[in-house]
Amino acid sequence: MTCADPIQRLIRELCRLPGVGERSGGRLAYHIIKASCGPDAPTRLAADLAAALTEVSARVGACARCRNFATDDLCVICADPRRDRSLLCVVEQVGDVRAIEATGAYRGVYHVLHGALAPLEGVGPEELRLDLVRQRAQEDGVCEVIVATNPTVDGDATALYLARSLASLGRAVTRLASGVPLGGELEYLDAATLERALAQRRSFA
Amino acid sequence: MTCADPIQRLIRELCRLPGVGERSGGRLAYHIIKASCGPDAPTRLAADLAAALTEVSARVGACARCRNFATDDLCVICADPRRDRSLLCVVEQVGDVRAIEATGAYRGVYHVLHGALAPLEGVGPEELRLDLVRQRAQEDGVCEVIVATNPTVDGDATALYLARSLASLGRAVTRLASGVPLGGELEYLDAATLERALAQRRSFA
Repeated sequence: MTCADPIQRLIRELCRLPGVGERSGGRLAYHIIKASCGPDAPTRLAADLAAALTEVSARVGACARCRNFATDDLCVICADPRRDRSLLCVVEQVGDVRAIEATGAYRGVYHVLHGALAPLEGVGPEELRLDLVRQRAQEDGVCEVIVATNPTVDGDATALYLARSLASLGRAVTRLASGVPLGGELEYLDAATLERALAQRRSFA
Repeated sequence: MTCADPIQRLIRELCRLPGVGERSGGRLAYHIIKASCGPDAPTRLAADLAAALTEVSARVGACARCRNFATDDLCVICADPRRDRSLLCVVEQVGDVRAIEATGAYRGVYHVLHGALAPLEGVGPEELRLDLVRQRAQEDGVCEVIVATNPTVDGDATALYLARSLASLGRAVTRLASGVPLGGELEYLDAATLERALAQRRSFA
């Protein structure tokens, strides 16, 4: 088979997706082809997926305000007048916005860093444009910046950097609580999380 | 967000892939968008993948002889004059062809059933076109039909049906050996496989 073979080409492109290796790429490609090619094909999966990818590629960019994905100048959250602009939540990835939105418990706005500080990989405050967070925190009406980076080494370092950079602005700067996940069992929890939950124990309300 | 939202549309299409749920579909979509959209995007993943899908959808069909995927009338294996046409290997899926080709140990040709007998799901001999296997086995020069369906209930039933249907043709009909996988440990092997390996034990050559 030459490189001009369309099946090999599809497998190669699918292998660029996260978590897809050569074997699972082959399986996905065969599934797609079986569902899409030839006169008896049950669906138009390949064509539908190609159209969705083309549309995303043409229409999606970054929100001018918060760097979330957006199809217009502003993302749907920044464009929504009902959101509470006094609360600014800083997250690492767009997927984190989705996760917080799924709780239904947050009505503020976001800022997406698209990463966390990782000096050894060359990701510093400039790459993440942390100056934009400071700039947004200074806007009129902002009361609190919730730093919702991941509780990892890189995420914690990013949170610490932001907390210091925002300290002089007179806004509340908070961090998500760490501790025992609901429904989790203490017996199976890692020691670091349990230690944190113990150290940050709270009195009954 | 409305249904016209291109990000939601991409997630919905990705969720049609096997093994992709809503959460992993979202993760894939965000990866694709981050890699492909906006002026700083590092790659053209979305466009490349869309082009590969479109090409597959336009160019790939079934081989007229063996029902493998093919970009021409015949697949690359049927079109190869160096393949041994006296050996016919019957497999359930195109992925099985790939797996056997990867061994480098088989130089015959194939026939792909695109499934196995599953009467409860309405898959009978007509749906699998098992008559085509008989027809190909009758061709001049075929010496042996290797039935390489999966060692599952459905695969075994298909193999048995084929063996009976081919019995009167005077061709050798064989089945892949079942037994202990190389590198496997007896202690962790399922009882059915071990029982089969014991029952079909062979004398040292």
